[in-house]
Parts: sequence; C-alpha cells; structure tokens
Amino acid sequence: MAKSLPRSPLAPARFPALPVIDGVRFATVAAGVRYQGRTDVMLAVLDPGTSVVGVFTRSATRAAPVLDCQEKIGGPATGGAAIVVNSGNANAFTGHYGQASVREVVNAVSAVVGVPVERVFTSSTGVIGEPLPHERIVARLEELNGALDAGGIEAAAEAIRTTDTFAKGAGAEVEIAGRTVRIAGIAKGSGMIAPDMATMLVYVFTDAAYDQAAFQQRLGEITDRTFNCITVDSDTSTSDSLLLCATGASGVDATGNAEFDAALEEVMRDLAHQVVRDGEGATKFVEIRVTGAADDADARTHGLSIANSPLVKTAIAGEDPNWGRIVMAIGKSGARADRDRLSISFGDILVAEKGWVSPDYREEAAAEYMRRPELVIAVDLGLGDGQATVWTCDLTHGYIEINADYRS
Amino acid sequence: MAKSLPRSPLAPARFPALPVIDGVRFATVAAGVRYQGRTDVMLAVLDPGTSVVGVFTRSATRAAPVLDCQEKIGGPATGGAAIVVNSGNANAFTGHYGQASVREVVNAVSAVVGVPVERVFTSSTGVIGEPLPHERIVARLEELNGALDAGGIEAAAEAIRTTDTFAKGAGAEVEIAGRTVRIAGIAKGSGMIAPDMATMLVYVFTDAAYDQAAFQQRLGEITDRTFNCITVDSDTSTSDSLLLCATGASGVDATGNAEFDAALEEVMRDLAHQVVRDGEGATKFVEIRVTGAADDADARTHGLSIANSPLVKTAIAGEDPNWGRIVMAIGKSGARADRDRLSISFGDILVAEKGWVSPDYREEAAAEYMRRPELVIAVDLGLGDGQATVWTCDLTHGYIEINADYRS
Repeated sequence: MAKSLPRSPLAPARFPALPVIDGVRFATVAAGVRYQGRTDVMLAVLDPGTSVVGVFTRSATRAAPVLDCQEKIGGPATGGAAIVVNSGNANAFTGHYGQASVREVVNAVSAVVGVPVERVFTSSTGVIGEPLPHERIVARLEELNGALDAGGIEAAAEAIRTTDTFAKGAGAEVEIAGRTVRIAGIAKGSGMIAPDMATMLVYVFTDAAYDQAAFQQRLGEITDRTFNCITVDSDTSTSDSLLLCATGASGVDATGNAEFDAALEEVMRDLAHQVVRDGEGATKFVEIRVTGAADDADARTHGLSIANSPLVKTAIAGEDPNWGRIVMAIGKSGARADRDRLSISFGDILVAEKGWVSPDYREEAAAEYMRRPELVIAVDLGLGDGQATVWTCDLTHGYIEINADYRS
Repeated sequence: MAKSLPRSPLAPARFPALPVIDGVRFATVAAGVRYQGRTDVMLAVLDPGTSVVGVFTRSATRAAPVLDCQEKIGGPATGGAAIVVNSGNANAFTGHYGQASVREVVNAVSAVVGVPVERVFTSSTGVIGEPLPHERIVARLEELNGALDAGGIEAAAEAIRTTDTFAKGAGAEVEIAGRTVRIAGIAKGSGMIAPDMATMLVYVFTDAAYDQAAFQQRLGEITDRTFNCITVDSDTSTSDSLLLCATGASGVDATGNAEFDAALEEVMRDLAHQVVRDGEGATKFVEIRVTGAADDADARTHGLSIANSPLVKTAIAGEDPNWGRIVMAIGKSGARADRDRLSISFGDILVAEKGWVSPDYREEAAAEYMRRPELVIAVDLGLGDGQATVWTCDLTHGYIEINADYRS
C-alpha cells in the first residue's frame, strides 16, 4: 500500500537513539517490490559466531519465508548470518512459486555476502497471494552488500514498514561485571496484529554472547509476556517473525544474567507497545490489567477477550465508560469468572465491585478519565492469584477506512 | 437507545403474515422503562398444558432474568405459562437488586395472570448495569392482561426491539396426518451477536404438542445449526434467551415428526438470518460455506474465524475480493488446514486452489461479484467430510457510529 497515512497520534516523538551493536551492519534500498519512492528491502549481516534464535506465527497458512526460517532456526552459530526483509509483498499463499522465490533470494544472498545458505533468514511483509518479484531483490544485493553500515538500523526500521505510520525501535545498555553490553531492536506492524507465538516482523540484536539453547527458551518466555499480550484487531498474520541475534562482540557472556534478561524484556515490551500505538486507526493506547484470576492463563484469556471485543474497543473510541461491555467480554471469554466477585476500575476510579456498580462511582469522573489518550482498565476476578497484562488500541473509523477502502 | 436508525438495507420488505397459534395471546404497552414514545414491554400468556423449553447464553456474567429462566426450564407443563419481556434495560450485572427485580415482576405476573410463579419467564434487553425500574412494568400488568390478543405477535416483535431497525418474525404451517399445525416466532438482536448456546431474544410458538424432553433436545440440535452459526461482531450477550412453546391446541402430537422438525428449523434459520440482516451497520449478508474439513467442528471453527475477522469483514464492506484475508482467517483459526489443499470461491468464481490463486481467476469478475448485497464465500479444506455454514455481515462505519457514539 503506497498511500500515505498520517502519523499515529500515539507515536513516540521521534525514533530513539539506539546503541550501535558491534557485529551487525545494515543496508537498505528502494527495489520497487511494490512501493515506489521509498526503501523496501533491508539487509542485515551478522559476524561469524552470532547466535540467531526466533519465534514465528503458528498460523496454519504460514508464508514461505516463515517456513524456511523455522527449518533453519536452531542450527549451529558457525559462519556469519544474514537477514533479508522486503515490504510490499508477503510471499504468502503463493504455493511452490513462493518457496522457489525464497530459494532464489537465499542463494543469491549466500553468494554475494559469503554466508552459508542455512544462515540466511528472510521475511516478506505486505499483500498476500501475489508472486514475489524476487528478481528485483536479487538485482540489488551487490549494491546492498557494498553499503553495509553499523549505524544503519533506523533506515532498516523505515524499509520494513507497510501500513506503519512510524518506524519502531528500542534499545538498552546493561553493565555486566563492569562491562557494557548493548541491545537494539526494530519492529513493524499495525494491522493483522494478534500474535500467536511471535508477531509481525521484529529484529533484536545484542553484542552480548548468550548460550543459543538458553536464548531460545528465554525468548519464548519473554514473547509470551510481551508480543503475545498485544492485539490490534484479533487477526493473526501469516508472516509473524521475530529474530533475536547475539553477536557476542562485546566479549561478555550474558547467559542467564537477570539484568540482561530484564533489559531484553523491556526492549521487547517497548517494541510491542509501539506496534499497538501504531494500530490501524488507533487514537487510544489501552493497558488491561487482570488480577485475581484462577490462574495466569485465565487472566490472559479474560484480558484478550476484553482487548479484542469490538464493543469494548468502539466504546473506548467514543470515550464512553461503558463498563457493561467489559462485564460482557469477561462473561463470554470462557475463562472462570464469578459475577459477584468481580471488580472493575478505570485508572484509579473504582467502577464496579461485587456484581454491581460501585456506590461511589460517578460517571462524569469516568467520562473525564476516558478522554485521556492512554488508559488503564483494571479487572480483578476475586478468585485467585492469576494475573496478566495485555495492551490494545481502540476501534475507530480510521480502521474501517484503512481496511475497507484499500488493499493492504 | 431511543435514537432512530434507518431500516437496514438488508431487511425484508415487510413483517411476514404469521399464522395465529391457538393457545397463545399477546399484549404490549409503552411502560417507559427507558425509551419514550414506543412500546417496550410485551406479555405472552400460554394456555395450560403448554410445554416450554429453552436455551440460554453460556456467558459467565449472565443477567438475572436468564438465571431465573434456567432454573425454571424443564419443569412440568401444568397450569398456564407467561412470558414477560422488556426492552431498554438488560437487568444484567445488577447484583441482588437485579434478582429482586425479577422476583417482583414474576410475582406480580403470577397474581395478575393466574399462572404459577415457576411458569413465569422473563427477559430483559438493553443497557447493562443499571437498575431495572420494575415498578413501571408491574404498574401496567393489569392493562396488559386486559389487552391479550391472539393476533398480537407483530406488536410483540416491535416491543422487544433495542437497536434493531426492523421487527423480526417467521412462521410455517405443516400438515401432519391430514391436520395442520402452525409455528410462529419472533426475535430481536443486531449487536453483541455471537450466540453461544442460544442467542438474543427469540420466542417461537406452535400449536402442536411435543414431548417436552424430546423438544428440549431437538431445540438444542437446531440451535447449533441456526443461531449458533451466526455472528455480527463476535461479542456474546449476557441476555441471550430462546424460548420455544408448544401449546398442543391443534390436538396434533408432532414429537419426532421430521416434517415438523424441518419446518421448525426453517423458522429458526429465518429468524437467525434476520438478526444478521439487521447487524449493526450491515450492508452485506454473507453466507460462509465450509466443506472438506477434518470434521464438522473444525468446519464451524474455520467458518466463524472467517466470519469474525475484522479484516475479512472490512474487505467485504469495501467490496474488495481480498481472498488473502480469508487465507489468514483459516490459518489463525486453530482448526486443521493444509495450505496446499485449500480452495476458495466467491459465488461461482473459483478464486484460489492448491495453495495459490486459480489460473482462471480474474479479479475484475470477483470485484463485480462483491458489489452484490448477498454474498456466498465457499471454502473447501480438502481434508475430509466436515462441513458447516455460518452467516455474518460486513463491518462498516455504521457499526462504529452506532457503538462509539451512543450507549446501547
């Protein structure tokens, strides 16, 4: 989609100043895969010894690049590695042609960059069902390889956008035993966002070393608390991919380091929030905190049921403190709930408790609160210790305009 | 909600001429429960010996009238029976006050109409979380009882509407052993429609006799193929109730009669379709036929995943034959699918087969088809004999307007 959408009102003021990750270089090019007049292919090249771990969509109709990445993840960290991403075409539901396109790109990257084919990872994002013009990508690989730059991460974040209205990045620095290790990540995504296992396209890099098997496991755990807790529209993409790369160039092994893990989680949460802030048509960023559920899984089910409810999302768009719709979403979720133990708050305003509206509740105060661009809805089930936090946005005319009037 | 919405473009031309069901009489009144200037309470009184069976929402936050009905369903068909329904207030999430309101209404109806309290069924539909002004209903019961009329079913269908833009009715006549039995039903519903076990408010009457236990079982089976196969917005109401009443006044026992069961199913399907045709903001009526699934349950899961997908529904609103979004919805549903065996058609137009677009597909033809107000989307999984048909509508600016700008 080449149309120009206005920048989301929930966007951060600017792209953050990200630390440079030693051992990774980026380049981008305007290859004309689908869009005109903007970059649409990015190449990242990783030094030999880099661990690459990843999580991917569980869709039964996964795109060809996802299937190829899944085969390769977990291989030994020998030789270098490369990541190639194009926007404008998802190379999804393109049959054998799609698999052949992935092979063409992977073989060409391997030859030009000098890394083994089993260490070339590709992602494609954009329209589903149209053949990927892979020759347009292959034709620009020499140029990309010649332009690699350790400082190119912001340009990379720009090149992978589709309906995104801003480029998304987050970074951190952590001191481990007196030495500094760095984390920097980028993401794209704004619609078809209801990650199941992973999400959208996300690339996170660190110059720490990290045991690859432990890294894969930690990635899964953090993904469950970050990207798997966001939703824009309950629709799960065929292309969701998250690659996490540890170059080890800092000389510091961060395996199992709690500070490093916390910094990594913060970077991933920040990127996940940026995806919600760029939700198609979004005007509100909503955090839904569920506590007191029978267990954590029930809490997440309730949270996502609220976050995905069109009636809740339209009420938020209309700045209407319509807490009855939250009761409805809890009731339909299938997870355990007792109407008479339930309490609901908007920010600090207690709305409902013990099965009915709170005696102190004043709708004017709640209506005033709902006018804020960032909202917290807290639900306590009163049943146990289960908790979860999920993030979503509202459902507005903008979402209908973007998705009914254009083919993305 | 007292606002006046334009009649749905998908509405039938007029309310049907329904057969009069001997043994049932109706009355309505404008009690001012919430709306002004329109009827909002209906009373139906059923002759002694009437079997009443029902299905109800499985929401964990069910409204007080639903809980009361569920306790009573299955009781012996002695004495008469009565059904009282108000629109404008759902009496849901109203705690002990809500239960007391139901008792007040039930006791008053029992006294005025002369039926046992355990045979008085109530439903309430409208805003959630506000106390039901039951005294306004009780005050009008004598008047209602004095106005009972066997021909009053259309007025009853009018009185139970909330955001419905038209009153919904369907009927049938069946010859059994040379005698005629009659079926007539009414329904309301247009938003918060994703029935789970039952749906909205639906009342179906027949003058046949029918063994009560067999009737309850048959009702469950038919509900699974009709009301449980429609969705407007994936949100399940706290008030969904369907009551089916057999007065036996025709003197014909229809228990297990295949023609009667088929006619009943047709009446229920017709009512279910009318609810979809009145979906909030709907401009398209969409039938999704799923075949070739591993089993029927998988077929229904795929069908509802397509029918509930905001991206599919907005594409339909935009008359865009965006079949890639159907692939996405199948992929995310969690039911079994093999990308390379999947085929998708719009009406008679084969769009995709064997994992990619059909070689004969012409987007112009599909775009032309999508301009129709009634669409059939057929999906074959190529895996087995499982099948299901579900019905939905599109997602338009009208839905956002109705739900973001007003409190319903």
